[in-house]
Amino acid sequence: MTITSDVDQAISSLRRQVCDLHRHLTRYELVIWTAGNVSARVPGRDLMVIKPSGADYDSMTDRDMVVCDLHGNLVDGTLSPSSDTAAHAYVYRHMPHVGGVVHTHSTYATAWAARGEPIPCVLTMIADEFGGDIPVGPFALIGDDSIGRGIVEALRDSRSPAVLMRNHGPFTIGRTARDAVKAAVMVEDVARTVHISRQLGVPPALDAADVTALFERYQNVYGQPGRPADLPEENHR
Amino acid sequence: MTITSDVDQAISSLRRQVCDLHRHLTRYELVIWTAGNVSARVPGRDLMVIKPSGADYDSMTDRDMVVCDLHGNLVDGTLSPSSDTAAHAYVYRHMPHVGGVVHTHSTYATAWAARGEPIPCVLTMIADEFGGDIPVGPFALIGDDSIGRGIVEALRDSRSPAVLMRNHGPFTIGRTARDAVKAAVMVEDVARTVHISRQLGVPPALDAADVTALFERYQNVYGQPGRPADLPEENHR
Amino acid sequence: MTITSDVDQAISSLRRQVCDLHRHLTRYELVIWTAGNVSARVPGRDLMVIKPSGADYDSMTDRDMVVCDLHGNLVDGTLSPSSDTAAHAYVYRHMPHVGGVVHTHSTYATAWAARGEPIPCVLTMIADEFGGDIPVGPFALIGDDSIGRGIVEALRDSRSPAVLMRNHGPFTIGRTARDAVKAAVMVEDVARTVHISRQLGVPPALDAADVTALFERYQNVYGQPGRPADLPEENHR
Amino acid sequence: MTITSDVDQAISSLRRQVCDLHRHLTRYELVIWTAGNVSARVPGRDLMVIKPSGADYDSMTDRDMVVCDLHGNLVDGTLSPSSDTAAHAYVYRHMPHVGGVVHTHSTYATAWAARGEPIPCVLTMIADEFGGDIPVGPFALIGDDSIGRGIVEALRDSRSPAVLMRNHGPFTIGRTARDAVKAAVMVEDVARTVHISRQLGVPPALDAADVTALFERYQNVYGQPGRPADLPEENHR
Repeated sequence: MTITSDVDQAISSLRRQVCDLHRHLTRYELVIWTAGNVSARVPGRDLMVIKPSGADYDSMTDRDMVVCDLHGNLVDGTLSPSSDTAAHAYVYRHMPHVGGVVHTHSTYATAWAARGEPIPCVLTMIADEFGGDIPVGPFALIGDDSIGRGIVEALRDSRSPAVLMRNHGPFTIGRTARDAVKAAVMVEDVARTVHISRQLGVPPALDAADVTALFERYQNVYGQPGRPADLPEENHR
Repeated sequence: MTITSDVDQAISSLRRQVCDLHRHLTRYELVIWTAGNVSARVPGRDLMVIKPSGADYDSMTDRDMVVCDLHGNLVDGTLSPSSDTAAHAYVYRHMPHVGGVVHTHSTYATAWAARGEPIPCVLTMIADEFGGDIPVGPFALIGDDSIGRGIVEALRDSRSPAVLMRNHGPFTIGRTARDAVKAAVMVEDVARTVHISRQLGVPPALDAADVTALFERYQNVYGQPGRPADLPEENHR
Repeated sequence: MTITSDVDQAISSLRRQVCDLHRHLTRYELVIWTAGNVSARVPGRDLMVIKPSGADYDSMTDRDMVVCDLHGNLVDGTLSPSSDTAAHAYVYRHMPHVGGVVHTHSTYATAWAARGEPIPCVLTMIADEFGGDIPVGPFALIGDDSIGRGIVEALRDSRSPAVLMRNHGPFTIGRTARDAVKAAVMVEDVARTVHISRQLGVPPALDAADVTALFERYQNVYGQPGRPADLPEENHR
Repeated sequence: MTITSDVDQAISSLRRQVCDLHRHLTRYELVIWTAGNVSARVPGRDLMVIKPSGADYDSMTDRDMVVCDLHGNLVDGTLSPSSDTAAHAYVYRHMPHVGGVVHTHSTYATAWAARGEPIPCVLTMIADEFGGDIPVGPFALIGDDSIGRGIVEALRDSRSPAVLMRNHGPFTIGRTARDAVKAAVMVEDVARTVHISRQLGVPPALDAADVTALFERYQNVYGQPGRPADLPEENHR
């Protein structure tokens, strides 16, 4: 009973966090209309919290967020889950360290994805966050495990928390949903900067050793010690 | 009398919806100054509700929306109707399933229109919403049925709710005015993404069978069952 | 005495209008920091109202607007007039039908100006508002009549209310300050759309006869009859 | 004691100013998430006030700003200083006239930096603020004096308050933190305009004599006499 109540509380808190995190997608103009979605794994449970399908960013509330199992079946909620739920679920099943997944059609990242071209590591900011080139995943139809499988295969051998799914758009992962949102914001930013730089020439790639030095420093030194990255969003304000 | 009163109420509600839907045009920066317009058919009547000519987006109210017959003649309202009223009226006369029409000069869609080049179906999002390439319509002068005829001819053999009128800009249609606004938002988004992708290469087109599979799924499965798409805008909030 | 008081009231009203019109420059992102300026002629007087030099858009008020004669000398106000005052004054002295002048460094219009390339009339919207290609003016140093003379010479034989001053940026004129602001908003919009269209091809120019037909219709039919374009801004809300 | 109390008051005021100046970085979209930072020298002391590492722009307050000595050691504050503190400190140690430093990854300036290409002086606005081409600094890893040394070397023989650090992004300096923020806003604006102009041709460079005339006028005549540029930000409102 206590356990159930703890889970209830965790889910209730995640519904708030997941709903709230979507505001970064609109603020940074990563999504239009009802496209895009954020999910979070329920820690220690085979459950996830995700945006409902076709939900309006301005009007959706905590209570609209739905709870699914890790096969995408609805467990709690009155609305249908995001049409990308199967992809999120596959990632959680196969990447146990992942606590959050985000999908958008953000303009520049999707432009690279449409050409099936990885974003080269030509900026310190790419080394910091992505630890190398940002990889491309396969084209896959929606409706079964194809998209999820493509994400997991593309990310398995990469330090990058972002993958550009061909002709589709970026998916990002993170230890928490907030980290995955951060990666979604950053992948669009670097996709835009590198695109623009490439329009008038070819920016040189960073040395592999410098990339590793930057990545390790950023992952371990940047930010505040003792302020856990998975602190609920409201506590960051 | 009851009938008249029902029509009055329908018109009053459509005035609110049409006025309110224009906020998406400014939010997504599809229009500047007073350019652009949304209209809605009055269900079961040969009437439409449309934005007045030269109206300011920030200050216009429900009562400023004008009612015209389907030949563009003013039926109710104190202001002159949009200078694009004849085009909207022609579409309603010749496409009975259309309940809403939108016109903008949104930047990227208009850039494709200026070259007279269709937007190729290279993204899952284009397949979802437009079901194939987004077609080009003829150049036509304002002032008679030319623009309306061009829209209807270009869209008749297409699954696309958007047409790029040469040297002019996009027109979109929908079962409801809200659907037409959604298409106006999405045509600009995909026009931008494909333009940017094309700047550094040629994104491959999707297979026709994949396009159809994506279109049919999106049109029939996406969103919430039992939540009619023509629900008044205010109920979506 | 009545005359003096009428002039005082006209100036007071223009200070409000001029100050308020600057919000369109920030809303449409035509300016950064303190760059850009709007002025209005005081009707029937050899006076103008203009933004002070280096004024902050967010904090400036009606009372900060300064009154100058048409040689740029300060007549009323506590702050120094805009560093572009001489150019505005020259335009008012030599173009008696002009009631408002606007200057910005808006991105796309300035990009055309930097290359010294007119914006070709390839959109109905350019025909409507500018009546043909948008012309280029000479490079001129700030500090004397050079800029003003360049503007007047470039616009004298054109229907366009906008000129692209080489290596500098656009100046626009209008019957009223509001009309000049509208032209500043529209020149950036069409500069952007044509630039983007040109990146992937060459949009065909409109026929001269079509341009004239569109221009005359837009100038005479568009908008609301009996609603004067020089109505104070506040009455448009 | 009075001295100490004066310093305390100066630091308290600078904390407010530095915190507040960051809003320009978000307003002009020069930064995403927690990237970017502003610092100010404490006048007459070997101290600086700087943003903490990984701080959220929306929630950070005056009290979060940290005080460091000019070797980057924390002197006062509860949070870790920005990971770019060593670079700011080096600049203050070696450029005594500098009172403020700003770092961003703003898109267009970073795109030039990624190619290692200076921004050519093809606009009057570049001559005004930067007095010539905007120079490129070396690639340098974070963590010691390398970045600071690169900034100082690149700016020593230039009139420009901005330097484009290779594969990284712009750093700007100013007599005050506000001036450095202004330079950060302007470097992105001109980086964007020149980039766009260059996409369709090569804008001609200004003559060196014109550049000097424009620079000297703008630095000495522009703005309001008797309104010191280092007036606290709040007094500008």
